[in-house]
Amino acid sequence: MLSAEIIAIGSELLTPTKTDTNSLWLTEKLNDIGIEVMLKTIVGDDGARLEEAVRDAMKRSDVVITTGGLGPTEDDITREFTARAVDRQLVYHDEIEARLRERFRSWGREMPDINKRQAYVIEGAEILPNPNGSAVGMLAEIDGKLLIVLPGPPRENQPMFLDHVFSTLKAIAGEVYVNRRILKVSGLGESAVDEVAAPIYKAYPTVQTSILFNKSEVEIHIAARASDPDEAKRTTDELAGKLAEALGTAVFSTSGETLEAVIGRLLLDRGQTVAVAESCTGGLIGQRITSVPGSSSYFMEGAITYSNAAKIRTLGVSSEIIEAHGAVSSECAEAMAAGIRTYAATDHAISVTGIAGPDGGTPEKPVGTVFIGYAGPGGVRSIKIVVPGDRYLVRWRASSAALDLLRRQILR
Amino acid sequence: MLSAEIIAIGSELLTPTKTDTNSLWLTEKLNDIGIEVMLKTIVGDDGARLEEAVRDAMKRSDVVITTGGLGPTEDDITREFTARAVDRQLVYHDEIEARLRERFRSWGREMPDINKRQAYVIEGAEILPNPNGSAVGMLAEIDGKLLIVLPGPPRENQPMFLDHVFSTLKAIAGEVYVNRRILKVSGLGESAVDEVAAPIYKAYPTVQTSILFNKSEVEIHIAARASDPDEAKRTTDELAGKLAEALGTAVFSTSGETLEAVIGRLLLDRGQTVAVAESCTGGLIGQRITSVPGSSSYFMEGAITYSNAAKIRTLGVSSEIIEAHGAVSSECAEAMAAGIRTYAATDHAISVTGIAGPDGGTPEKPVGTVFIGYAGPGGVRSIKIVVPGDRYLVRWRASSAALDLLRRQILR
Repeated sequence: MLSAEIIAIGSELLTPTKTDTNSLWLTEKLNDIGIEVMLKTIVGDDGARLEEAVRDAMKRSDVVITTGGLGPTEDDITREFTARAVDRQLVYHDEIEARLRERFRSWGREMPDINKRQAYVIEGAEILPNPNGSAVGMLAEIDGKLLIVLPGPPRENQPMFLDHVFSTLKAIAGEVYVNRRILKVSGLGESAVDEVAAPIYKAYPTVQTSILFNKSEVEIHIAARASDPDEAKRTTDELAGKLAEALGTAVFSTSGETLEAVIGRLLLDRGQTVAVAESCTGGLIGQRITSVPGSSSYFMEGAITYSNAAKIRTLGVSSEIIEAHGAVSSECAEAMAAGIRTYAATDHAISVTGIAGPDGGTPEKPVGTVFIGYAGPGGVRSIKIVVPGDRYLVRWRASSAALDLLRRQILR
Repeated sequence: MLSAEIIAIGSELLTPTKTDTNSLWLTEKLNDIGIEVMLKTIVGDDGARLEEAVRDAMKRSDVVITTGGLGPTEDDITREFTARAVDRQLVYHDEIEARLRERFRSWGREMPDINKRQAYVIEGAEILPNPNGSAVGMLAEIDGKLLIVLPGPPRENQPMFLDHVFSTLKAIAGEVYVNRRILKVSGLGESAVDEVAAPIYKAYPTVQTSILFNKSEVEIHIAARASDPDEAKRTTDELAGKLAEALGTAVFSTSGETLEAVIGRLLLDRGQTVAVAESCTGGLIGQRITSVPGSSSYFMEGAITYSNAAKIRTLGVSSEIIEAHGAVSSECAEAMAAGIRTYAATDHAISVTGIAGPDGGTPEKPVGTVFIGYAGPGGVRSIKIVVPGDRYLVRWRASSAALDLLRRQILR
C-alpha cells in the first residue's frame, strides 16, 4: 500500500482562526484508491522549514502533496523551496507566461511583472494546468516517488487534482479497495471496550482498527483493505460481527448511526411513541430525539420541568416525594417518567433529574449525580449515575445515559 | 521571540473527517505571550514517525507541544515515543497509579489493568495533573528547550495548559502583552457588519481585527499588542467601544458572552422569569437557556409541543387557529407564547414553530420557514424568518433568532 504526506503552506494556517481543510478532501480521494495519509505538516511562509518538510516527507512517503504558496507575491515560496528540497532547478516556461498574459488580457488588464514568478516550474516536472487561477501545479517523479505541488484555493486545487493527478495515482496504487465501518458502544468505557475487543481485532492484523472515546460513547473504527471490493467488505462484516457479538447490547450501532437515530428506527419499527420529562438536561434530550428527520412520527411531547412547581403542576409529582426524597432522587425521576407518560399517552417515557453543577452539589449528592427514570409497558424503573465532567459534559452524559436506557427498554 | 511547534497525535486526525483543532486554541494562548507557532505536524498512531517528528521539532523550535495519544490503549503511543525522541527513559510512578485507582473507585469501578500504562512518565519531567481525565501531562526541559506533552481532549488539555504550563512559558517569553476582546453581533450578516466596522478598525493598523461568521452570529475579534498591559487594554477598550456604538443593539456582548448568558444576566438584573414553548427546535432553546449555571433562578418551565395535540392540550392553542392557519403560522406562534406564559406564570415567554426539513416544505412555506412568538408585559407579537441550511442549521438559527427576540424585548 502506498503512503502519502500532505504539506499545507501559508502563514495564515498558523494563526488561531484558520485551519488546513484542503487535506481532508485530498485524504478522502487518496483513501478511495487505497493510498494512506501518514502525516500532515502545516508550515508558514518560511523557506528553510518548507524545504526541510518536503525533503523529510520525500524520504518517508511514496507520494507528497503540497498545497498553497504558488501565488505571485514574495510570500509565495513554494516553487523555490520545493525545487531545492528535491535538488532540482527551476525552469522558466515562456508558454506559461504567454497564457498568463492572455488570461489578464481577457479581463482587459496588463499582466503585472510579478506574475512572471508563476512561470517557473521544477525541472522535469509535468505542468498541471489551472483553468480557475493563475498558478499552475506540478507533478514530478523523483527517485520513484511523486511530488505533487498544488495551489491553495479549493476551487483551483480540487479540479486540478481530479483532472491531472488522480488517474496517475490510481495507476500506480494498483487495485486496492477500502471498506470502512464504525461500531458505536454505550455504557462501557474505552478501556473496558478495548479489553473485550483487542483479542478479536488483533486476529485481523491487516485491518486498521481504532478505538475512540467521544464524550459519552466509544467508537470502534474498522478499515479493511483488499485487492477485491467484495473481500474488503467480507472482512469488515466478519470483524464487525464478531465485535458486536462479544460486546452484546452495549453496541447500539454497527453502521455509525447516532443513538437518537437508532431509537427512532426502533420506535418506527414497532409503531411506538415516546415522551420526555427533563430537569437538569433542560431540553437536551428532546432536542437530540427531534434532531432526527421524521421524529414527529414517534416523539409526542416533552416537558422541561426545571422548577419543583413545574414538576408538581405539569407532571403530577407529589410534593410529598419532593419533601421526603428531594427533586434529585429515584422516586422523583420515576414519578416524572410516569407523569409524562400518562399525560402524553405514549408507550415509553424517560425522565432526568440531577445536579449538573457547578453549584448545588452536596456530600450525599455531589455534582454529576443524575437519576434517570423510565416508564413503559412493563412498568416504572430508574437508575442512578454519577458522571464526571463540567456542566456541559454532565448534561450531555446524562442525556446519553437516558437515551441508552430508553433504547434498552424498547429492546426488552 | 520564541518559536513553538505543535504536534497532534492520533490516526483519526489523518482521516477525511477529523481535523486538529487543539492547535488553534493553543496558538492563541501562545501568541498572547508573544510565542509564535512556526510549524504544525499531524501524525498517526505510528511510533517511528512520531519519534522523528518530535526529534526534528526539538531541533528547530524552543517549545514543542504534543496533544493526544495518552490514553490507556495500545494505540496510545505518545509516552513511549516522545521519551525515545529525547533519549530518555520512562519511569513508573506509583502515586499516579494510586490516584487512578482512586478515580475509578469514586465511580464504583475497579481500574482495568491497562490503565497502568498511564502511570509512566518521561524521566525528569514535571507531572501535570489532570482533574478532568485519567492521563497526566508532562513538561520536560531538554537542552534548554521545552517539551510539553498534553492529552487530546480539549476539556483536559486546556485547563492543564492554563494551570500548569502557561506561567512557565510566560516567564521565559518575556514582556509582550496582548489584550483580546470579542464583540458578538446578532441580526446582521458578515458583510453588513464589515461595512460599518471596517472604517473604524482600519484606523487602528496595529490591532489585529477579524470578522467571523459563526452559524448565527457575527463575531468581531480584536487583539491589541503592546509592551505594557495597560496600553494594550486601553487600545482594545477604545476600539471595542467605538464598534459597539456604531453597531448599536445588534451588539449583544462586548466580552464574548453567549446570547444565553447575556439573557440570564438581563433577567437576573430585573428579577424576571421566562418560559419557552418549542415545536421545531424540540428543546434546543430550553437547553441553551439552561446551559448557563444558575439558570434555575429565572427559567421556570419549557414545553416541547411537537404534535398538534400537545400544542392544544398543553398550551391551549385553539384547534381553530391550527385549522385556519396551520401549526406553522404567526397566529400559532403567538398563541403558543401566550399559552406557556399564562401556564408557567412568567414575565416573558418565547415560542418557535417552523419547518426544519429536510421534508415538510411547501411552496408557500419552504423548509427554513420559522415563526417566533413572544409574550410579555407589553403584549404578544411574532416574527417570521426564512433561514438557509440543513435541519441542524435551521434549528440552530431559529433558536438564536428566538433568543435574540427575547433579548430585545427584555431590553425594551
